[in-house]
Amino acid sequence: MQKTIKIGIVGYGNLGKGVEKAIAQNPDMELTAIFTRRQPDQLQSTGGGAKFEHISAAETYKGIIDVMILCGGSATDLPEQTPVLASMFNTVDSFDTHAKIPEFYELVNAAAKQAGTLSVISTGWDPGLFSLNRLLAEAILPEGKDYTFWGKGVSQGHSDAIRRVPGVKAGVQYTVPVQAVIDRIRSGETPELETREKHLRDCYVVAEEGADLEQIRQAIVTMENYFADYDTTVNFITEEQLKAEHQGMPHGGFVIRSGVTGENTKQIIEFGLKLESNPEFTASVLVACARAGYRISQEGGTGAKTIFDLPIGYLSPKSAEELRRDLL
Amino acid sequence: MQKTIKIGIVGYGNLGKGVEKAIAQNPDMELTAIFTRRQPDQLQSTGGGAKFEHISAAETYKGIIDVMILCGGSATDLPEQTPVLASMFNTVDSFDTHAKIPEFYELVNAAAKQAGTLSVISTGWDPGLFSLNRLLAEAILPEGKDYTFWGKGVSQGHSDAIRRVPGVKAGVQYTVPVQAVIDRIRSGETPELETREKHLRDCYVVAEEGADLEQIRQAIVTMENYFADYDTTVNFITEEQLKAEHQGMPHGGFVIRSGVTGENTKQIIEFGLKLESNPEFTASVLVACARAGYRISQEGGTGAKTIFDLPIGYLSPKSAEELRRDLL
Repeated sequence: MQKTIKIGIVGYGNLGKGVEKAIAQNPDMELTAIFTRRQPDQLQSTGGGAKFEHISAAETYKGIIDVMILCGGSATDLPEQTPVLASMFNTVDSFDTHAKIPEFYELVNAAAKQAGTLSVISTGWDPGLFSLNRLLAEAILPEGKDYTFWGKGVSQGHSDAIRRVPGVKAGVQYTVPVQAVIDRIRSGETPELETREKHLRDCYVVAEEGADLEQIRQAIVTMENYFADYDTTVNFITEEQLKAEHQGMPHGGFVIRSGVTGENTKQIIEFGLKLESNPEFTASVLVACARAGYRISQEGGTGAKTIFDLPIGYLSPKSAEELRRDLL
Repeated sequence: MQKTIKIGIVGYGNLGKGVEKAIAQNPDMELTAIFTRRQPDQLQSTGGGAKFEHISAAETYKGIIDVMILCGGSATDLPEQTPVLASMFNTVDSFDTHAKIPEFYELVNAAAKQAGTLSVISTGWDPGLFSLNRLLAEAILPEGKDYTFWGKGVSQGHSDAIRRVPGVKAGVQYTVPVQAVIDRIRSGETPELETREKHLRDCYVVAEEGADLEQIRQAIVTMENYFADYDTTVNFITEEQLKAEHQGMPHGGFVIRSGVTGENTKQIIEFGLKLESNPEFTASVLVACARAGYRISQEGGTGAKTIFDLPIGYLSPKSAEELRRDLL
């Protein structure tokens, strides 16, 4: 019987709650404590009797917790937290500011190498599973073109932008991939496309009483950097409708590579996700990667790793023999 | 500048020809020689001036060829060839008799361990990419169900069975996934399904002159182990139509996992292939895996590996830095 992997969660927002639930689905793992910057005694576990600790107490869990799963945001939390925690623990995070990944990698790699720990960085679904599929498809079909579509899903940044428009009380924005474009690519075409040609923006807006709806619509569809370049639809709804129909956090998308082999033989590789909860799914990827990171650490591996560096078999609780027999 | 990876091909059927073409798409690789059991001077390369050698000369290439890509069949060729060649070279093969993989693994692992070589076994798309996606999806969504669909594609075994029916001159059988079932699963249902409920069988048959077509149709659709349990369609066509429309070797399929996280939150992961040429695509996977095997061998790795054991980044010619910057 293998020893249970002891997990700590840092941050208890949607992602941290998702990790708590995902650990409960994996019998080879055990949640040791949840670390927070808030008052730990004011937090209540949604998934059972988890123990809360102030983040400043993390150090006292050195040698007890096998992997810390960091559930903070990429803007300010992770660049600060990951290197500090990597100097004490194996870690996993979902740092997703694509442009800053190289610099984040160097920072975390240095901290983890020095401490002899292992950190899986920038995992989840994009970056994460989508990245893995972009790489795999490009390696197999070097002559080709790949397309990433996101959605249908809520974009937090665009929803925030809607809510800043005068007269708007509340609102949600969905990014929606353009089905006609997906169909063209699936049929073997390889068009040149900007992100805006691949996606629509669907807005659901609750207006303040007496607000000029047409003025709100105009303000949204002409907003630079957010909506001006896109086909944007604005739907006005009531607060009740918003609560009833738009509280979920669905997301998903596709990575499609259309390539050729031999004498112009068309070959298409596609990976897709359809998620009712983006944070719960991301959490499930983090938990599987925590298992892989723990194993590599047990074998003596140190430093920062991405999903590109993990033998995928390490994400499963099954042995290599079982995997060859049952899944190959 | 990295050294070019020197490749040998063993077997020059459709798969071997596909590997030759795939190597031409990968500038970090070089085809050193093609090994055959036939008279080497009677073979002509379809893809350029490749050198042919009799298989018995393989030993003289020890230390020259970095990876041997074995393109023989799983029934008799590979169980014999892989262990022998693994005792001299790093190898890659597409051994696809699922039930015999554990025993094949042990055989090859022992030979490769003893010789200090590395063998990537049972790769391609199923086993291979489909296996990888079954594993990945199960590791991320431990509570769920997965479905593998094959096709639309030619089944060699079923095409052979058609051709054995009296009165049949020629014929091709396509395995076709049932769209309505795929749609149910994509929408979140998780039905219990037998292979025969997920696939149709479409037959294109050239009858001999004067043959009783209805009798042929009956003989096919009632054939035990092949067609009796399936919805089977028999289409009679002319020899010209067969040549014009059914000479390709298309294939593909889907691996779909429908799982739940948290409190019954539905999450769907899907991987799909749409291939105009099954052997050329399989060949492209073998070539990318040859690169990964070579790298692991350069790092001192030995023994048999499957796609579950390969860090996926090793399949790409790009450096880890480039991959993090461009694809993560």
